[in-house]
Amino acid sequence: MHNERFQQQIAFLLELDKLKNIYRQTLVLHEDRAENDAEHSFHLAIMACILAEHANEPVDVLHVMKMVLVHDVVEIDAGDTYCYDTKGYEDKAEREQKAADRLFALLPEEQEREFRGLWEEFEEKATPEAKFANALDRIQPMLLNYKKGGISWMKHGISEQQVTNRNIPTVSAGSDTIGEFAAEIIKAAKDAGYLQ
Amino acid sequence: MHNERFQQQIAFLLELDKLKNIYRQTLVLHEDRAENDAEHSFHLAIMACILAEHANEPVDVLHVMKMVLVHDVVEIDAGDTYCYDTKGYEDKAEREQKAADRLFALLPEEQEREFRGLWEEFEEKATPEAKFANALDRIQPMLLNYKKGGISWMKHGISEQQVTNRNIPTVSAGSDTIGEFAAEIIKAAKDAGYLQ
Repeated sequence: MHNERFQQQIAFLLELDKLKNIYRQTLVLHEDRAENDAEHSFHLAIMACILAEHANEPVDVLHVMKMVLVHDVVEIDAGDTYCYDTKGYEDKAEREQKAADRLFALLPEEQEREFRGLWEEFEEKATPEAKFANALDRIQPMLLNYKKGGISWMKHGISEQQVTNRNIPTVSAGSDTIGEFAAEIIKAAKDAGYLQ
Repeated sequence: MHNERFQQQIAFLLELDKLKNIYRQTLVLHEDRAENDAEHSFHLAIMACILAEHANEPVDVLHVMKMVLVHDVVEIDAGDTYCYDTKGYEDKAEREQKAADRLFALLPEEQEREFRGLWEEFEEKATPEAKFANALDRIQPMLLNYKKGGISWMKHGISEQQVTNRNIPTVSAGSDTIGEFAAEIIKAAKDAGYLQ
């Protein structure tokens, strides 16, 4: 029989299966359906190792990867709040803190500290790793939205200004190279009529 | 405008979106649908960092995580071959080599070498990291199949012996602890009537 520590780890990993059913506003490229948090987190993790050289400051890639893998775990309880939904943002922080209390406590104590710490670090956007992870978290949906013909932006009537204000400072804080790329995507999306 | 290197990296990352549409035999726990390769790879990556302490030999966790993130990339061209499909396995290696030739070549040359190397290392199961990554790749669907009431095993009439022969040596080569856990799952699945 396995010890309590191993059982706690398995319980946490099974709980994360729920990320496969939390749907985002972004669509996947090759099917007509929304992307879920597990797919989004997968994409960010592989982006972290392929694009790490473009971070503004040197980053610990393992640290970035762990951070992006757990950055959306709180949505299991708190749900996905659409980034242009100002009403949903009012109580987002409170809902997510409660979710973090429950979810990370499934882990053995020192892993709870580590992974809750990674989530808080991501939210605070202060370290080089958190800045880079947040840059990836912003560019990934922009890239998919643009490649998918802007469906998700048009559905919500999003403007060039909204996308710029929300994303460019955050992306550029993590990577000037990816920030320039984000600006190009916004310009192309505006030219194509995807953004108001 | 971005240089060729950055464009190659983005092209590879966009191509990986197709992993979100490659469906496996395993079902997700909280919806009635198959799991896809992106979700499976996400799950293995987070398992790698939570369970690394149980590897039989010390492992470089970043190396394991990169390996599991790309271990199924070849299925974009070669498709998912069900692990108990002996016919499908006849030309699996050839199909996957061709897929690897095309897919990893989307990357800049030294990243092509690195990531193709990681995929080959995973397939060869010789290094501590590859053994541990393969153990995770086997325990994850077993755990989901068991928690999902054995639907996928029963659908294909899989026996206790088949699951044992296919998985126990590979899981135990990477982790005795996870190997014992796998044996417990098989016993419980047999007792529950999920396995013949």
